[in-house]
Amino acid sequence: MAITMYDLAGAEADRRFSPFCWRARMALAHKGLDVETVPWRFTEKDKLPKPNDGRVPVIIDDGRVVHDSTAIADYLEERYADRPSLFGGETGRALCRFVQNWTETVLQVGLIRLVVLDIHRHVGPADQEYFRSSRESRFGASLEEFVKDREARLPAFRTSLDPLRRTVERQDFLSGKNPGYADYIVFGAFQWARAISDFELLATDDPIAAWRGRMLDLFGGLARRAPAYGS
Amino acid sequence: MAITMYDLAGAEADRRFSPFCWRARMALAHKGLDVETVPWRFTEKDKLPKPNDGRVPVIIDDGRVVHDSTAIADYLEERYADRPSLFGGETGRALCRFVQNWTETVLQVGLIRLVVLDIHRHVGPADQEYFRSSRESRFGASLEEFVKDREARLPAFRTSLDPLRRTVERQDFLSGKNPGYADYIVFGAFQWARAISDFELLATDDPIAAWRGRMLDLFGGLARRAPAYGS
Repeated sequence: MAITMYDLAGAEADRRFSPFCWRARMALAHKGLDVETVPWRFTEKDKLPKPNDGRVPVIIDDGRVVHDSTAIADYLEERYADRPSLFGGETGRALCRFVQNWTETVLQVGLIRLVVLDIHRHVGPADQEYFRSSRESRFGASLEEFVKDREARLPAFRTSLDPLRRTVERQDFLSGKNPGYADYIVFGAFQWARAISDFELLATDDPIAAWRGRMLDLFGGLARRAPAYGS
Repeated sequence: MAITMYDLAGAEADRRFSPFCWRARMALAHKGLDVETVPWRFTEKDKLPKPNDGRVPVIIDDGRVVHDSTAIADYLEERYADRPSLFGGETGRALCRFVQNWTETVLQVGLIRLVVLDIHRHVGPADQEYFRSSRESRFGASLEEFVKDREARLPAFRTSLDPLRRTVERQDFLSGKNPGYADYIVFGAFQWARAISDFELLATDDPIAAWRGRMLDLFGGLARRAPAYGS
């Protein structure tokens, strides 16, 4: 029986733009597991299976509910230990936490200041007010104010990606010759931006763009086929 | 027979302050190998065993010369495969590269702007002119100019350490329950600063300070015993 995954959707049900859901989606594909996704919107908190923390991803696997992308990855690694490993061992899992913390404190923080207004344009009508007021309260600025001058901030954003750039310039994936969960964590952030924004985050000759292309090719082009902008 | 390691030294022969040499020193200890270090100064390029690229660390193990800290770690992992692993497998090794690239583009770049003048004070008399002119040419500024206002830059430096902070707040070491080469890479940068500067890089209640304390305790206090400032 396929695993069910609750997946953040925009006004169009097939536009999926949660970085955390993309981590889980890629991890499920890495394990070769069938999945049926259920489109879910920010304001549908009562539609999630329990337990949950009001957010996605949440998966149901044979009656078992697991929420939070990190918990889902850990669950899949243990439950499907006979399938390709996400972490490549305990050291790999521990170092994934560093990649995750870099992604959440540098990459995603930089991205939100470039694309948050584009997200607002794509969320469903019922979600727009919730999205605007929750984010404006968090940022202490209007969405328009928060992203203005994004062109001017782009060079600093690109420089902040140096650790990623140097790594994927010298090896195909963060995880080495083959992709692993660390790649899915970082890729989730790029796929989030790609789903809702045509803003050019990367120069075309950036080694990160080449790596993103390799990620888009994985699993029969799973992420490339999803409704999104750009290449 | 003990391994010989050429190790960057200051005016005092036992003040060792190369971040790259500390990586190698900790990796040798991790493998439980005896080492005899040879103090070496920047301007003694003709005193290094060949092959070398004019820099340290360089090790000699049973007649074999290996230079460059990354090559040394790879060599030790293969040659002493029966001893505790530095990487915990190929994924761990690949993810170490990301930690290394973060260390070299964020941590060490931030540190040099805080402590480069302190380095100058500690290098040997014959090295001072070389050190000043090579660094001032690289930075396009005098050493004094380069570090001025370091107090004002300290908050941004500390914020730049968020990925490290969040990780070692939740697990003892970057590599998990036990330290590994990723820890030695990051620690090398802190030990470099600690060897030559009394500038307080970290607040006392910073989880990174607690992690650094755990690193200083390793291998019978190997790094703690070395001539340095602070705790």
